[in-house]
Amino acid sequence: MAEAFFASGADYVDRALLGFARDHGDIVELNQNPVYVTAVNRDPRRRVGIVSGGGSGHEPMHIGLVGTGMLDAAVPGKVFASPHNRQIYEASKAVAGPDGVLHVVKNYTGDRINFGIAAERLRHDGIRVERVLVDDDVATESEQTATGRRGTGATVIVEKILGAAADQGLDLDGLTELGRAVTARSRSVAVASVAHTSHVTGEPGFVLDPGQLEYGVGIHGERAQRSIPRPPLEELVDRMVADVLAKAPAGDSAIVLVNGLGGTTGIELYNVFARTTDDLADRGIAVAGSLVGTWSPALDMKGFSITVTMLDQGWAGLWHAPAWTAVLRK
Amino acid sequence: MAEAFFASGADYVDRALLGFARDHGDIVELNQNPVYVTAVNRDPRRRVGIVSGGGSGHEPMHIGLVGTGMLDAAVPGKVFASPHNRQIYEASKAVAGPDGVLHVVKNYTGDRINFGIAAERLRHDGIRVERVLVDDDVATESEQTATGRRGTGATVIVEKILGAAADQGLDLDGLTELGRAVTARSRSVAVASVAHTSHVTGEPGFVLDPGQLEYGVGIHGERAQRSIPRPPLEELVDRMVADVLAKAPAGDSAIVLVNGLGGTTGIELYNVFARTTDDLADRGIAVAGSLVGTWSPALDMKGFSITVTMLDQGWAGLWHAPAWTAVLRK
Repeated sequence: MAEAFFASGADYVDRALLGFARDHGDIVELNQNPVYVTAVNRDPRRRVGIVSGGGSGHEPMHIGLVGTGMLDAAVPGKVFASPHNRQIYEASKAVAGPDGVLHVVKNYTGDRINFGIAAERLRHDGIRVERVLVDDDVATESEQTATGRRGTGATVIVEKILGAAADQGLDLDGLTELGRAVTARSRSVAVASVAHTSHVTGEPGFVLDPGQLEYGVGIHGERAQRSIPRPPLEELVDRMVADVLAKAPAGDSAIVLVNGLGGTTGIELYNVFARTTDDLADRGIAVAGSLVGTWSPALDMKGFSITVTMLDQGWAGLWHAPAWTAVLRK
Repeated sequence: MAEAFFASGADYVDRALLGFARDHGDIVELNQNPVYVTAVNRDPRRRVGIVSGGGSGHEPMHIGLVGTGMLDAAVPGKVFASPHNRQIYEASKAVAGPDGVLHVVKNYTGDRINFGIAAERLRHDGIRVERVLVDDDVATESEQTATGRRGTGATVIVEKILGAAADQGLDLDGLTELGRAVTARSRSVAVASVAHTSHVTGEPGFVLDPGQLEYGVGIHGERAQRSIPRPPLEELVDRMVADVLAKAPAGDSAIVLVNGLGGTTGIELYNVFARTTDDLADRGIAVAGSLVGTWSPALDMKGFSITVTMLDQGWAGLWHAPAWTAVLRK
């Protein structure tokens, strides 16, 4: 396994952000000290700044989702590490609206803590802050753990819907309620056949026996409760869809995200999507919106996740509303 | 190394196309017999149908580039295999304009032959056809070979510029001349640290010793003339930029494509882009447009290519003109 194509210094994440900002200077602005990315343009009706962030290694999430109709700011940490609370605080101050700031946080301990400290500091400054905690991964749903479900692919869907609602002028309480409702109707599961390459060792994050899959893998290479013998793709997707739907509310219309974990090809993702849509059709669930691609990877892991968000009244319109970010344009 | 997440039958490329068409039904239409993809909408000023194609395994190229402002049709073959001439013929007939059809063909023997047969059949039907042969890969520039440079990343740039010019009503001869001029001012080189996973064997397409890079690799896993010891990323990018510029015409403004070969992360590609833009700035070359991402991969290969197109009068405007495809939206 080969090491990555990173710049030589320890600042390879910062160098990547510099490259990203040069590529998309019409959409984002990079602040270097502390590090965060803000949108160049925002809808003037927006009353709330929407801020997300987390460890790097999941690109295009979140930097690629900054722009008109989605995030006002993204705060990247080092690879697989939470950003510092100062980054979150400064980014939030920079984009706060008259109604304050909404933090969209994936459910990981480090992110919860650092966004929490930043929120306290912001409130101390008189800025209103609420949080939407995204926790969609059914693989970590257990009564034995206090940390709850991890936040994964649903974050993209939550951020798109919230961005559109913010552009319509929804206030902080309304956005918070909406984001929590979308999260509550979203579930995901992920599978991997080859681990990511560790950014520390240059070696695979874990080793799977041939013919085995990690069913319920996390986006930082968290191993599943167990590996499974590799079934045919149809059977695998059927099982994943069944597991996701078992934990999602009932419904007849959904947004579907088939997300590559980094080293998964377009042919593979579209094979997965074709079967997923067959499975949903068999259950009478219409696909009102979809995203297929590498949206929230675990560096270069080979695998994919399936996310389903069961729609509620008005959400399809928010999903299809205009947006203009580095990678999501509608 | 694990096998891919393909549907169980031999028709996994067709299944992927079905998934793609379901994801982007507002932009593309899939024809199943023979297999090709056409744009749902086209600019009414367009007088020429622009058709490209080639082996699958390079997604999003070309299917993701079908839509308003770019390709009228894409014709996918099986993985790493040219499409059949009947596919090309039927796709061309379906989208031919009053001025005929322009074929954008990457320089590989199979594609040349099959697009050539289709062109003969179209001419027999009284439809005008011209060809732009894209041959940008400096790794295969040699006086010892009759086949010439391979066509790689520059194809995306050629197709964007041609699409915009076609939308302005340029005729077949004008588009052909423009496409050949853009190609003549475009050069690329690619490097890999890990081969793609063969779709036939499930094993790596080739094996590199640790610490070695394949410098001048092709997008089907064609090995380079030699492997090189892996230098720091800065030195590697400097060398690639120098090699590309040595074979490109002089200029002071360029479009730059940093293309992932499939298993390369966003952080890596933006590290490469940051250094590439530094190198170009040192030479006084302004970056008038850029694309950074997985645009023309070799299945899941770990590596990247750098393409530079030196701009001529008016091309920047064509590059930035509106387009609306599955993956390229401006």
